[in-house]
Amino acid sequence: MASDPPRDEIMEATYRALCKHGYAAVTMEDIAAESEKSKAALHYHYESKHDLLVAFLEDLLSSFTAELDAVEGSSATERFRALVGLFLESEEEESDRRFETAVLEMKAQGPYDEAFRERLDEFDAALSERFADVFAAGVESGEFREDLDVDAAADFVVTVLNGAHTRQVAVERPVEQTRAALERYLDESVRRTAEVEQ
Amino acid sequence: MASDPPRDEIMEATYRALCKHGYAAVTMEDIAAESEKSKAALHYHYESKHDLLVAFLEDLLSSFTAELDAVEGSSATERFRALVGLFLESEEEESDRRFETAVLEMKAQGPYDEAFRERLDEFDAALSERFADVFAAGVESGEFREDLDVDAAADFVVTVLNGAHTRQVAVERPVEQTRAALERYLDESVRRTAEVEQ
Repeated sequence: MASDPPRDEIMEATYRALCKHGYAAVTMEDIAAESEKSKAALHYHYESKHDLLVAFLEDLLSSFTAELDAVEGSSATERFRALVGLFLESEEEESDRRFETAVLEMKAQGPYDEAFRERLDEFDAALSERFADVFAAGVESGEFREDLDVDAAADFVVTVLNGAHTRQVAVERPVEQTRAALERYLDESVRRTAEVEQ
Repeated sequence: MASDPPRDEIMEATYRALCKHGYAAVTMEDIAAESEKSKAALHYHYESKHDLLVAFLEDLLSSFTAELDAVEGSSATERFRALVGLFLESEEEESDRRFETAVLEMKAQGPYDEAFRERLDEFDAALSERFADVFAAGVESGEFREDLDVDAAADFVVTVLNGAHTRQVAVERPVEQTRAALERYLDESVRRTAEVEQ
């Protein structure tokens, strides 16, 4: 997720500390060092590093959901591309790449950490829903195949975006290839014109 | 990756310790506790927990590559399904799920850890290659579209498998949906008959 860092000052400090130290190693001291606030002040707001990271994840996902909701486009195809584009931006900055890594570390905490898992669940569902809305709008307007399984297609795209993100972190594979692959998917499996023209 | 645990006794002990404690928390003590060997004996073979985990990852990926190579099928479609099936087995055992999580934690270490990243890279490339071989064989035999971009399709499938794995860990999403989605992908984008029959 190539999201902007959250707005609140503590959240911004957490973002910078996560980019520098990673999820596993980051400490309240590291976050305080990035913030105008002292470690004591951080502890006044958040009892533990875990509480702060849960708040961070929540803030991150809600600002990202707001970005998803702000997506515009004159057609369902354009809105699909815009949604995909929010996820598959090239990460030119080293800090972006570090941040993607911290997000993957937090995903890997899902099974251990109920508070994380709840937020991840909520975001996964919100994302699937946004894609399903775009697919349904495209079917409605006649732009997409009328027999498109809207929920299954949305779920598949969310899986693809998760995979692009994981491979970007694990093996530095550029996300551009996935943008191209999803463009082919749109042509071959989603858009009506692909069938009509054959 | 629903692989069998590695064969060697230390590797099996490492597998069990990772399932119990996870990648971040596991210690040499934990591994020794699962092994017939003492902690001192483990340190005789492996200087550090990191060295042992690198050896474990290597062993895991090479046994998994051997499983990929042993895949059989009377057609390219069947071999494709068998390859996919190796990755998208239902994880009914709690220990399988814990192990998937440890693998995702190791993937998230890619950017921090060159030794891990090299092994992950090698496996990612080996996997893409196996799918590309199956796609090429299907094009050759006339089973798949002759204009199929074999490398791009293989790369896409590897992304999808990574995504299924990540979502399974992060939000407990069952992998069966991805099997069905890849079956549709095969019909709509890969197999020749899909075009001919339209």
